[in-house]
This record gives sequence, structure tokens and C-alpha cells, in this order.
Amino acid sequence: MVVVMAADATEEDADNVVSLVREAGGEAFVSRSVSRTIIGLSGDIDNLATLNLPAQPGVCDVVRISVPYKLVSREHRRERSVIRVGGVPIGPDTLTVIAGPCAVETPEQTLQSALMAKAAGASLLRGGAYKPRSSPYAFQGLGEKGLQILADVRAETGLPIVTEVVDPSDVDLVATYADMLQVGTRNMQNFPLLQAVGGAGKPVMLKRGMSATIEEWLMAAEYIAQRGNLDIVLCERGIRTFEKATRNTLDISAVPVAQRLSHLPVIVDPSHSGGRRDLVLPLSRAAIAVGADGIIVDVHPHPETALCDGPQALIESDLRELASVALHLSPLVGRTLTPAPAPAMA
Amino acid sequence: MVVVMAADATEEDADNVVSLVREAGGEAFVSRSVSRTIIGLSGDIDNLATLNLPAQPGVCDVVRISVPYKLVSREHRRERSVIRVGGVPIGPDTLTVIAGPCAVETPEQTLQSALMAKAAGASLLRGGAYKPRSSPYAFQGLGEKGLQILADVRAETGLPIVTEVVDPSDVDLVATYADMLQVGTRNMQNFPLLQAVGGAGKPVMLKRGMSATIEEWLMAAEYIAQRGNLDIVLCERGIRTFEKATRNTLDISAVPVAQRLSHLPVIVDPSHSGGRRDLVLPLSRAAIAVGADGIIVDVHPHPETALCDGPQALIESDLRELASVALHLSPLVGRTLTPAPAPAMA
Amino acid sequence: MVVVMAADATEEDADNVVSLVREAGGEAFVSRSVSRTIIGLSGDIDNLATLNLPAQPGVCDVVRISVPYKLVSREHRRERSVIRVGGVPIGPDTLTVIAGPCAVETPEQTLQSALMAKAAGASLLRGGAYKPRSSPYAFQGLGEKGLQILADVRAETGLPIVTEVVDPSDVDLVATYADMLQVGTRNMQNFPLLQAVGGAGKPVMLKRGMSATIEEWLMAAEYIAQRGNLDIVLCERGIRTFEKATRNTLDISAVPVAQRLSHLPVIVDPSHSGGRRDLVLPLSRAAIAVGADGIIVDVHPHPETALCDGPQALIESDLRELASVALHLSPLVGRTLTPAPAPAMA
Amino acid sequence: MVVVMAADATEEDADNVVSLVREAGGEAFVSRSVSRTIIGLSGDIDNLATLNLPAQPGVCDVVRISVPYKLVSREHRRERSVIRVGGVPIGPDTLTVIAGPCAVETPEQTLQSALMAKAAGASLLRGGAYKPRSSPYAFQGLGEKGLQILADVRAETGLPIVTEVVDPSDVDLVATYADMLQVGTRNMQNFPLLQAVGGAGKPVMLKRGMSATIEEWLMAAEYIAQRGNLDIVLCERGIRTFEKATRNTLDISAVPVAQRLSHLPVIVDPSHSGGRRDLVLPLSRAAIAVGADGIIVDVHPHPETALCDGPQALIESDLRELASVALHLSPLVGRTLTPAPAPAMA
Repeated sequence: MVVVMAADATEEDADNVVSLVREAGGEAFVSRSVSRTIIGLSGDIDNLATLNLPAQPGVCDVVRISVPYKLVSREHRRERSVIRVGGVPIGPDTLTVIAGPCAVETPEQTLQSALMAKAAGASLLRGGAYKPRSSPYAFQGLGEKGLQILADVRAETGLPIVTEVVDPSDVDLVATYADMLQVGTRNMQNFPLLQAVGGAGKPVMLKRGMSATIEEWLMAAEYIAQRGNLDIVLCERGIRTFEKATRNTLDISAVPVAQRLSHLPVIVDPSHSGGRRDLVLPLSRAAIAVGADGIIVDVHPHPETALCDGPQALIESDLRELASVALHLSPLVGRTLTPAPAPAMA
Repeated sequence: MVVVMAADATEEDADNVVSLVREAGGEAFVSRSVSRTIIGLSGDIDNLATLNLPAQPGVCDVVRISVPYKLVSREHRRERSVIRVGGVPIGPDTLTVIAGPCAVETPEQTLQSALMAKAAGASLLRGGAYKPRSSPYAFQGLGEKGLQILADVRAETGLPIVTEVVDPSDVDLVATYADMLQVGTRNMQNFPLLQAVGGAGKPVMLKRGMSATIEEWLMAAEYIAQRGNLDIVLCERGIRTFEKATRNTLDISAVPVAQRLSHLPVIVDPSHSGGRRDLVLPLSRAAIAVGADGIIVDVHPHPETALCDGPQALIESDLRELASVALHLSPLVGRTLTPAPAPAMA
Repeated sequence: MVVVMAADATEEDADNVVSLVREAGGEAFVSRSVSRTIIGLSGDIDNLATLNLPAQPGVCDVVRISVPYKLVSREHRRERSVIRVGGVPIGPDTLTVIAGPCAVETPEQTLQSALMAKAAGASLLRGGAYKPRSSPYAFQGLGEKGLQILADVRAETGLPIVTEVVDPSDVDLVATYADMLQVGTRNMQNFPLLQAVGGAGKPVMLKRGMSATIEEWLMAAEYIAQRGNLDIVLCERGIRTFEKATRNTLDISAVPVAQRLSHLPVIVDPSHSGGRRDLVLPLSRAAIAVGADGIIVDVHPHPETALCDGPQALIESDLRELASVALHLSPLVGRTLTPAPAPAMA
Repeated sequence: MVVVMAADATEEDADNVVSLVREAGGEAFVSRSVSRTIIGLSGDIDNLATLNLPAQPGVCDVVRISVPYKLVSREHRRERSVIRVGGVPIGPDTLTVIAGPCAVETPEQTLQSALMAKAAGASLLRGGAYKPRSSPYAFQGLGEKGLQILADVRAETGLPIVTEVVDPSDVDLVATYADMLQVGTRNMQNFPLLQAVGGAGKPVMLKRGMSATIEEWLMAAEYIAQRGNLDIVLCERGIRTFEKATRNTLDISAVPVAQRLSHLPVIVDPSHSGGRRDLVLPLSRAAIAVGADGIIVDVHPHPETALCDGPQALIESDLRELASVALHLSPLVGRTLTPAPAPAMA
């Protein structure tokens, strides 16, 4: 941290800062120039943060120069991580496609969606049994019945399951079914939920909050990591901006930026970013080309009857093209498409 | 709802929409012009929403023309509501000041803050025992011990208590101590929490999400209302924008806009909006003048040692000015300052 | 400026920075701690900026700690400025109301609007003869004919004129008619225009760009000031955010923030911020209460036929209320309402 | 357009709207349902816009359902356009790389940059002689001397020139040197400048305003087109959002969205979007993969001494990789890399 003293700060003001820092076990280096005094600090940042330096007399600004997250940072682990979900890798050498319906509705719709997912090159199945909906009058998901459907479809297709959890008290139940727990964009800073999934013993996909900075996103991951779970996959899904032509604005730059700051894999959700079926393929190509470790897309056998987010779901005729894109673009960024696991023998 | 057909939509496409709507029990009126066909719909919007009209062939756009919330709307209740918190009113004829420390730290700090709050014209005490913090390494609140401190200070000062709850499973416990439950900005779309406070039998203060539209904010209130609890106070606390000179951008227009759309009281948090002590007084004046039903401000006896948000807390010398502003501006907007209740007799 | 060296920077890297700075005539103070080296710089910032320090080997970050504008800053002039427009003051002791039609359409409409402006408490008349419109097919203003109408109405009513200029080559012409030149939000960074109005010898009202930071706004003012013209009034008119309930989001905090950073007066445009007639009065109250030095509002005798921005114009019945608000709120913030000048004798 | 009447609108209110529209030569179709009346309009939108329907009694909302631009729309021209710049095509079958220094500084630096551009696969040279800078104290460009340098380098390398113009009165001069005129992000709504370049007889590259919607961007293009110049290339260069990890947020979705709405080519500027050299390559890959018709990148022989935007310029070692990316990704999106033209014979 660097403490910048005000132009009219006195020498006593600077001495006060130095004393406080030293009492707290830190080091302080004072640089005085004609117009300004600057104090460089080192030591335990969390400790120094309790000193409330911005409120000290004569202090103009306190500038933090190291990142506030630790376990998820590249400084903690230099090599980029590979996370395994039911045996399927997500990491720097592969491109992993996750696909499925936004919401689990019926066994038939879920199985059909899983087969569509496979046709699209997916090795993981996503599907929501607990849906956070902005209206209390909208379909809220099938709950445990939906989880059971997902498990049945996994048994039949071999695809491990990614599914959302929205209440800390549901985490244990969902974790008994899921191969990976999803924390949605509206829950990125639901700290009790982050702590619960941090202790659940399953990999976690953490979607970026719709107005979260990349730093806040990594701090949310740190909450999970701090409970001992470093099997975290970050998912960029678009941020909220003034532009209304798309549902959200896909922050494609967030992928390389987050990968430089953190060792965790970063994937992209082109379906929720754009909110339009006709943008899913171009945005998938962009995500793979920018270097994402995977993509997660909505598919639905009959989007016109979907209970959730129908307008953005891919349909049959899009699947072959997505599979082809995933297969042919991956090598250009030094990756191979992750194959779907085989169903377990009966 | 209005369905706008694409320029190249066929007559069959329009007929299909009409059939779907009529099967679902709605009405559909077709207007054909040279260049476009438009279909006006009426009936149960939630029902029509399940038809997924945007995905039907030939449909270009579906425009909603009525609001998606019901119980919290002015159409449901024409008169603006008065909510009572431990007997203290928040509503259209009064200006209610809520003040207290961001976090409860010790009995002394809490009592001293409550006395400061009274000096500032407050009739309700706020203070956090459960703190949602963006870093897992930051102070997370005292939990139930903090609630007990608040209850003791209430007994001594007479001020009813407003305090935050962050986990659905804590709601019952917090409700036994609190006079009003606060749902914070990061939890505005934590739907299990909204449902839990909706069933807790205590008034709720719902802070606007930092990137929530006014419509989403009212939909979040609808979640609470739908559980039978209409004692809800909306709190504007600044939104996230590109401007970094302030911690958030106080959306002062949201006060009259929300008051026109909903019968619920709307208050303003000038402390978290600006994030700077020197902005609290000007923003409080603006909030009162724009017509807010109350304000909620941070006070702290020793901001320089505060464990949370010290830089924005008011100090002793600010209090008299805030009380004076609240007293003298209120009549200009047709209100009276709500007096603090007397402590109960021993 | 503070240069923060990377964790793996060498001593040579730091020496290189110091040498570059000293060669450029600046001073550099090195602070070395266990984990980081920090170099504080002083000297001519513009000079140091040419060194491109962020690109030097081992440099992690360069943090600027002084403001980049000079002439418009409080450091250059401690006292807040009073700008006089045709004799009418705008400054810290007064509240000045500017009103008029968005666009000058006819002599009758302009005169009628001027009389409405007076009834609303205005001492300056605004009206556009050159309109920047987002569609080339929209009404673009009457040009010089409109300026002539404004001059005639000034002669009749005594109200000095504020009018917009959009092309550097029109500045001289507009300046022969206007008492104050307005630079609109879309032209805030039209640098040739800023330089032209800086040399025109008339006061300038500089509207904030719709996505400009407060710092960029002050830099734009600096462009005008640098040409020798310090008679500048800043006008906050709402910024672009995700919220669509209002045309723009009035950044009410920008008023005290800009007033602390700059000695220039700051006024508020509640008409363009909200874009709705029903918000003009509440936002005017908020603007006066927060401490604005004035407000500028749209009035129109027949908004339903207005060629520009009709939906936000005040009508007859609003005027008395606005005048009353301006009169009664001003003393609470230590101001008096600026009276309209008398028309010149015939 | 669709006019939505208020819930309490009378039959007379609706009749009034119908009369106004018919008098203005349009058609109106009334749909009455139990709760609402909706009026569909057709006819000349610009004509109807002058009726100021939102201000009529009983009108709740007016929803526009056709786009406000004409000449640049896909409805005006179904096939995507190919624009030729000094013989070099920009359009749907090619990928065109434009490269060069942000600012022209010296003949040597410009020539060296042009050779770097060629090595990076570029077929057009960009370089600024007139620079819009947010500080009046920053380097403002060499003016005509810079144009002369560009022309000399064109003669030597064969690369046609793209260069910015910022003042309407400079357009004729710049057009005598340039092969393509650039309108920068801060001037996207500088309407006199748009009209001037519309009449200059040279292709125009129109950068998106940093807070412009896609619709406003296309309206700005319409201004140019309306003067008879349809040789326009749109350039996405990042928008302003809350995220500060990158200089701007590249709105990658804007490329397919704008291409669906308009027949004009759309290119991407990965240098200004990210503002960081390490993001230029990943963002270039994303831009090509999403389907952009070209990219424009900063190169500089010595970024550490660049007078403008040094930190984002590519250096020697990046060039081969960019050329390789452009060459190998293009075929995957059905394009071929546009070759550089040969220098003219002496």
C-alpha cells in the first residue's frame, strides 16, 4: 500500500501514519518531495487495513498495490489449474463444451437435450432444477425431482452433471446428485452460499455477477477457496451496460484478464450473454478464439415451449455447426476438444 | 402485450399467434397495415408468458405494456403506504431518519452511536450484526452477540432496531431481536432470502441492487409481498456506473419514479451512495428535497477505528447540522420529522 | 506520481526509472521494502508523462496523485468563482434559474416561452438555434434566423441569452448574438469547438458528456480556460447508465464533487436528466438542496407541438411551483434567488 | 409505431390520436380490449414523429417498431457492402488488417511503423496527424506536416492511408491526402463533422462513440450517408462500463448485431478496446472469429517513447503472430486475408 499525504499535511501527520503502521507490525518508508509526502507500506495487508488509514489526519489517498485475493491468484499457484468434473477436465490444454437445457422440465426433454448436447460436442450436461427467477410468478424449477431426472439422464448418457444451487441449506442435497455445483450471477456475492459450496466437496462453477468487477469475481472465488475448495471454474456470462441490443454485454476481454490474474479456468456462456439464438455461434467462436477453457450453451428440443430462456436456446440445426466450430477452432489456440465420456456399462 | 410481426411474416404466422393466445384463454386483436402486422393481446400476462411468443415463426418483437409486479404497485393500492417499525412511521407525511454504525462492534460503541443517532434526529437505530463483506478476510460481524447488544441499546434508548440478515436460515433468529429486517444490496435477488423475510412477520427494508433496474427492485419487493408481507420499505443506495469519483452513483430520480410506480415508502442511503463523509450532508439535503420518505446514515463515535466503512461515517460535529437539515427541509416538502420514541419506563 | 515496481523488478530497473526522471528534470525518491520497490516522483507532470514510464522494464503501475487540470482547479483559485452573463451572476451566493424552449421555433413561441421563464423565476433565457439531433431527418434548428429571434426577445424582456453552438466555424457568429455560449453534451470533447469558444470572449456553459467522468469534464473546461477564457459554468445533465426508467441518470453527487475540485459554478439540468415533465420539479428541488449554483429547465407554451423534447417541457401550471421552490429553498442553502434584469428602456 | 393508451384513457383520447395521424397522412388501427386500447400506426415515421404523440392526452407510451435509419439498413440494401480504400477491399469475403502508429511523429517512425504493419499482415496504414486529446497539454499531432509524411510513406510502401479528421474545416485538406477519413469515438455525434465527411468523396471509418448504442452509431452513419456517401466502415472500439481492468469493454457482440442491421462492413479495434498490449492478440483472434470484416491495430517501433498510447502498441515480436492469426483464422470464417497492394513503380 502507498499512503499519499495531502498537500497541506504536517510532518506530525506523516509521523502518525508511520507509528500506526509500525505498531501494527508493518514497515513504512517516507518519501518527502517539495509538494508531497508519500509513504510506502509493507506487511500484512489485512492487518494494515484495520488501521483505517484513509481516515487519519492529513491522509489524501491510500492506494493498494497488491491484489486482495490470495488462494486463487497466480502468485499463489503459477501454473494454470485443471479442474476435473466427473473425470472431465477443464483447463489450459482442452476446450470443454457444457450444454443442456436452462431448466429441467421433463425426463424426455432432459434426455433429448442431453443427446443434443452430445451432438454439439459437449462432454458435460447442464440443467437447472432450482431456478432463480426475477418474478415470483415465473417457473421456479422442479427441485429434487429435477435432480433425479438429471441423475437418470447421466446414467443413460454418461455425461456428468452441472446444476445450480441457490440456497445454502440445499447445498448438501444438490451435492449428492451433482458433479459440479453452479453459483449463478445473482448469487455471486451471496456469501453464505459461497461458504456452503466451499465446504461441499464438489467442483464449483462461479458465474460472474452482472455488475461485478473482475476483482470482485475473484474475491468471490476466494470465499469458496478459503473453505478448502480450489476446484473452481469461473464463468463469464456478460455484464450489465447501457447497451440494450443484447441482453448483457459479453466482456470477452475478461477471459484473458482473469486468466492472467488467477490460475482458475475461465469459461464463457454465450447464450446468456447475448440472449439471442443468432448470437450463440458467433460468440462461441469468439470465446474459443480468445482462449476460453470452455463454453456453456443452452440447448432445448422445443425452444418455443421452453419454460425458461427459450429465445436463446440452440436447436437441432445449430448443433452440427457448433460441434464443428469447437473441433476446428480449438487447435488454433493450442487445445483439443474434450471428448464426452462413455456411459457406464449396465 | 403487443406482438409485432416481422416484415416478411405470413398470414399463417399471425394466425398461429392468435390461436396460441386464444387457447391460453387470452384475447388477440390483429391490426394489418401495408408494411406490418401488429397483434394486441390481453388476458393473464403470466399465462401468456408461458407461450414463448418471441420464438414463434414470424414474430419480430413482443412488447410488454403492463407492469410485471402486482401487490406492490399503485394499481393494487392507490394510496401510498405507511409502514410502522416498532411504532415509528415511515410514509408520505413524515421524514424518518435512521442512523447507527455500519457494524456493531462493542456495547459502548453501539450505545454511543445510538446517542449520536438521536442527536442527528433519528428515530430508528441501524447496526449490522451479520455483515456481507466482499473479502473473506474482512470482519464479518458479531452475529447473535451483536443482536443482543442492539437489544440492550434499544432498551436503554428506546430506539427500535433495523438490522441486516444475509442467510435464510438466520431469519427467524434475527426476527426475534429486530424491529425491521434489512436485505442488503448484494442480496436483492437472493430469492430464498426474500421469501424467508416475507414470512418472518417483521417489516423489511429492501436495498436496491447495485445494478438493479427500478423494475427489478420492485419485482424483488413483490417476492416478499407474495409471502404475505407488505410492510416493505425500499432503500435507494446508489447504482454502479462508470463514474469512480463516488463509491456509487446515487440515483436520486429513482425516488420519485419508484413512488409513482409503487405505494411503498422509499428512503435514501447517502452514506453508501457517496462513500465519503463530506457528501453525506449534501446528499441528505437532496434526498429530503426530492421527496424521500426517510434517510439512513452511518454514524460512528470513532470512524478512524471503525471495522467497516469508517470513511463515510458522520462524526459528532456533523450531527447537529443533519438534525437541523432534517427539521427545516421537511416542511418544505410537506412533511414533519418523525420524533424518536421515549425509552420504556424501568 | 508514484511508480510501483513489479515484484520481480531488478535494482537496475528502478535505477533506470530514477535516471529517466532526473534527466527530465524531476525528482525521484526510492522506497525499498521486502516485497516491493516504490518510487515517488515530483516535478512537471506533463513532462514526466512523456517518459512513458508504464512501458519501462520492471514497472508494474504508475499512479497519478495530482489532478491533471490546473486553471480550473481549486488549487489555482481557492475562492469559488462568480460568472456574469449579461450582468446576471452565477456563483456561490445566488441561485440562478435559466429557462426557455429547447429549440427556437417562431417569434411568438420564443416570446411566450421567455415570459413563462420569467414566471418560473428565471433571470436568463435559453433557446437553441443550432440543434445537434441524433437523426439527420429531425429538425435541426433555425440557424441565424433563430439567433435574431432570441435577440428580439431579449430586447423585449431584458433576459440575457444562452444558446448552443455546434460548429467551430459558427462560434463568431453566435457570439455576436449570445450572452453565453452553450457547448452540448455530445460536444464535450469536441476539442476544436472548445478552443473556439475559449477564444470567443463570451461566457461558456459546458454540459457534461453523457459518459464523461468528472475529471474528463474538468479537462474539457481546461481546454476552454487554456485559451484565456475562465468564464465557464459547468452543467450536470445526467449520465448514461443501465437504468432506462429515466432518459439519463442525474448524477446529483457530481455537483458537490465538482465544486470541491474546481472553482467554477456548477448548475443542473433537471429536464434532460429525467426526460419527463413529472420529474422536473422533484429534481429541481434536489439540485437546489444539494448546493447547485443554478438550474436550467425547458419550458414551452405548447409542448404537444414542440419540435424537440416536448415531453420534458414544463407548462404554465408548473411555473408558479418552480418559482416558489427556487425562492423558498435557496435561503436554506445560504443563497438568494437571482432576480431577472429589467428590460432596457426604449 | 404502436401507441399504447393509458388504462384510464377515454374513447375521445383514442379518437384524437387517430385523427392526428390521419391528418398527417398516416394510417391508424385501433384495438380495444377489456383493459387497454392499442393503436397501430403506419406511414412516414418522420412525419408521425412531429405529432408529438407521447404528449397527447391519454397516451401512455409510444413504441417504435421500425428502425430510424434507412440508407445504411439491410432493408435498404440486402447484400452486405464492400468498401474499397485505395483499391483495398473491406467486406464480407475478406479480412482486412489496418495497422500503424497512433500518432505520426517523424518520417522514420512512420516508415518503420508501416513496415511493421506490412509484417503484421496489414494492407492499409493508419496514422494520426490530428489527435483529439483529453488534455490540452498533451501532444496534439503534426497537422498537415503529418499528412505529408503519411503520403510519402504511402508512395514508398504502397499502403493506402487511413487518418483522422477532427474539425469540419480540415476535411477538404485531409481528404486531399487520405484514402480513408477516420471519425473518432469522441466525434461520433459531431454532426457538422459527419456532414462534412459525407460530402468529401472519400470512404469514412466511423468509430463507435464510447457510450453510443448500436442504434445511435448507425444513425451517425446515416448522417454521412444522407450526404451521398455510402462508403462507410463501422469500427467497434470498446464501450465505457463500470469495469476498469481494461481501458474500455470491447463489445464483441456489436459486430454480428451491427452486421445484421446494416449492410456496412464492421471492423474491430483491439488496441483501444483493451488499452493493453497483452490483450491485442487475444482480442484480435476474438474479433476475427466473431466475423469482423477487419481489425485495426496500433504498432510502434519504440512504444516506450511513443507520444500517444504507447502501452497498447504492438512491437516487433508480436507482428509475426498477428499475421499468422489473421492468415489461419480467416478461412475458418469463410474469408481470405486481404493482401497488401504493391508499391507503385517509380
